[in-house]
Amino acid sequence: MQVLPPALNELIEAFGMLPGVGPRSAERYAYYIVRNQYANPEKLAQALSSIKGSIDYCEKTFALVQKGQKLSGLYTDPRRDKTIVAVVAEPFDILPLEKTGLFNGTYHVLGGLISPIDGISPDELHIKELLERISDDKVTEVILALNASVEGESTALYIQKQISDSGLKITRLARGLPIGVDLEYADQITLSRALEGRQTL
Amino acid sequence: MQVLPPALNELIEAFGMLPGVGPRSAERYAYYIVRNQYANPEKLAQALSSIKGSIDYCEKTFALVQKGQKLSGLYTDPRRDKTIVAVVAEPFDILPLEKTGLFNGTYHVLGGLISPIDGISPDELHIKELLERISDDKVTEVILALNASVEGESTALYIQKQISDSGLKITRLARGLPIGVDLEYADQITLSRALEGRQTL
Repeated sequence: MQVLPPALNELIEAFGMLPGVGPRSAERYAYYIVRNQYANPEKLAQALSSIKGSIDYCEKTFALVQKGQKLSGLYTDPRRDKTIVAVVAEPFDILPLEKTGLFNGTYHVLGGLISPIDGISPDELHIKELLERISDDKVTEVILALNASVEGESTALYIQKQISDSGLKITRLARGLPIGVDLEYADQITLSRALEGRQTL
Repeated sequence: MQVLPPALNELIEAFGMLPGVGPRSAERYAYYIVRNQYANPEKLAQALSSIKGSIDYCEKTFALVQKGQKLSGLYTDPRRDKTIVAVVAEPFDILPLEKTGLFNGTYHVLGGLISPIDGISPDELHIKELLERISDDKVTEVILALNASVEGESTALYIQKQISDSGLKITRLARGLPIGVDLEYADQITLSRALEGRQTL
């Protein structure tokens, strides 16, 4: 016995493909659209239809850009310092760094992290292009803004080895206690890093 | 400075209109679709585009049906007992009742609950149609399967008054302890109802 009309079942199933959306959430989204007369499913439908054809990657930084745009505004903006490059794994890692409002250098997206288990070797990442940028743009500092994971650490180490003899400054994001977390609830590894990287007052 | 391409911002904004989806979840959904080469946004786009034009309401029970279908399969199925009617507020309330597999009567969707605050009077609900069904289908039992809220209770009372002189059996869903909840954590109202409705063993 089909309790719901097929079109509604299809919509619930399609919502279910989103990350972290289980059957109950998918039902809730679909019900909302059916029940709410002001809901505009066409807007989401159009945004979904056009997304894959309307984004591209910046040729220099590999950040996401609008289709047809060769270079990201984050690179071409004359107010940004091209001699400082923050290296990130994914295009989406740029957003939280930009939100701090503290960084006015440029970005370089690797397109992933070195991971022998997932079969991702250094050749598949945009490391060669990073080395070219370092010499082309006379880069003075490379900030390795990578995740504090095994893959992030080993990718940082690999890049460090590649550019260590060029004499430029290589830094990475500080490890330590996140703001708002109590000392007693901090995990051992974070606390070890916070202790190692303790700062003189 | 625009960090993300406009198409991606539009997609994030469109996801944000779903219930319970904040900016972070909307970003996560949009990023997943852009990042995952196997993601098929067209499927969701098509389901969204067609949903509003492809569902309708059953003329008898007001359950959701496919466009063009006059009566719900939950009503026309000869194996279902038309003399027992479960009255629910919304079409989506049918699903959990069907999932129990214990009910083989038919449903009647009111299309809401009486609520003076929201300006919903009995005339706006499908109560007249329920009274017609009661006489047409020779209904013997009406199960008021409404929420245990103020609106649910007062709607149940209103319907009870309308049909009390017709001599048919009027029941409502049992109130009591939900399965898996400890006595010590049960709220006072639930426990009061469980005590009032105690069953002889």
